[in-house]
Amino acid sequence: MSTDDTNKHSIALVGGTGPEGKGLATRFSIAGHTVTIGSRDPARGVEIAEELNSKLEILGQSFVPVQGDSNEHAVTNSAIVIVTVPYSGHRATLESLSHLLDGKIVIDTVVPVYFEKGPRPVEVSEGSATEEAAAILQNSNVIGAFHNLSAEVLMEPALSLDSDVLVTGGGDAKQVAIELVRDINGARPVDAGPLRYSRFVEGITILLIGINSRYKSHSGIVISGLE
Amino acid sequence: MSTDDTNKHSIALVGGTGPEGKGLATRFSIAGHTVTIGSRDPARGVEIAEELNSKLEILGQSFVPVQGDSNEHAVTNSAIVIVTVPYSGHRATLESLSHLLDGKIVIDTVVPVYFEKGPRPVEVSEGSATEEAAAILQNSNVIGAFHNLSAEVLMEPALSLDSDVLVTGGGDAKQVAIELVRDINGARPVDAGPLRYSRFVEGITILLIGINSRYKSHSGIVISGLE
Repeated sequence: MSTDDTNKHSIALVGGTGPEGKGLATRFSIAGHTVTIGSRDPARGVEIAEELNSKLEILGQSFVPVQGDSNEHAVTNSAIVIVTVPYSGHRATLESLSHLLDGKIVIDTVVPVYFEKGPRPVEVSEGSATEEAAAILQNSNVIGAFHNLSAEVLMEPALSLDSDVLVTGGGDAKQVAIELVRDINGARPVDAGPLRYSRFVEGITILLIGINSRYKSHSGIVISGLE
Repeated sequence: MSTDDTNKHSIALVGGTGPEGKGLATRFSIAGHTVTIGSRDPARGVEIAEELNSKLEILGQSFVPVQGDSNEHAVTNSAIVIVTVPYSGHRATLESLSHLLDGKIVIDTVVPVYFEKGPRPVEVSEGSATEEAAAILQNSNVIGAFHNLSAEVLMEPALSLDSDVLVTGGGDAKQVAIELVRDINGARPVDAGPLRYSRFVEGITILLIGINSRYKSHSGIVISGLE
């Protein structure tokens, strides 16, 4: 960890045992943040944390060891909560954790998608997963980000993302999310506007899943023309 | 015009008097295609065509002179029809032209957006403007493309787009659209899947409009990771 700890955060990854959670945990632990992988099954959270720590040690990376725990403990012990559950568990997970999330920064990465001959959108009555989170978590600072990064690339610390991260929402929490993006090698934050734009950001991931299948790629997006 | 005319097309721009139509007409006339600017008011179509021709002559560009006409005549005289009306006129325009579009390639560029404190999506019952077009034009080959290119950059032939064009739809018509993208300096075609993905491509434009206002940019998107 660097000696400048003012920008180092405690970060919980709710449902962080999947590829997206593992990828973000990899990058944020390298950046010097204290990361806890949360899971419905605490033992599974610990297992994934140990797997990541072993991998980063073998790679000779400098990093802050990742911890594993229940979603509840992970959230309680962290200032920033990143939601990386599959969409099918989105509403129930957030409702069950809502009292623990009061006053915290909650960054939603979830894409409302299901698969039936390719990826298809789930209609969300609030317009997007992130707006659904904001409706459930009335006392949290909800931000949308990290939807469009390749989990496969995130999990390999030697690789540059070469992608933009579109960040939706407002207030100080948005600035915190934007700074977190800068901690990921090759990721650039782009202010994508208020929460109501989240549906379009989430939709890009559905496009990218299709493109990855067609082009055998691990794609991302870059906004051109921003100088 | 090059001596290889096998890939030169007759192209109508329905509602082509706006920035997007003028931009595409500029690029396609430089590429050697025979372009007709269609308008509800034929005199307005002629006026815009003459404006473009004068500009390209002043710039010393090699190009095929652009023509102007009514939407009906433009469509009748062209093998490829590109729809560049505002969304408010989308359904009525296509319904009125539908019998003239039978058997033709119709490339829809239209984004269902309205403005009220920033850009907002119009809900389209078919899911997207392009799918709405396909529902109206049962006997045409409907493709979605050219949604995310900056009209301002398109109108300046010296500028490279530095943007991808996400193309939706299927069949031979899709290949024709993909080849047309390659005629635009700095634009790269990306196969974005079947028509049902059009909603996400159209949504990107709404994001980009917001980003342009926030960053004072003429932005586009690039899919990274496609090699």
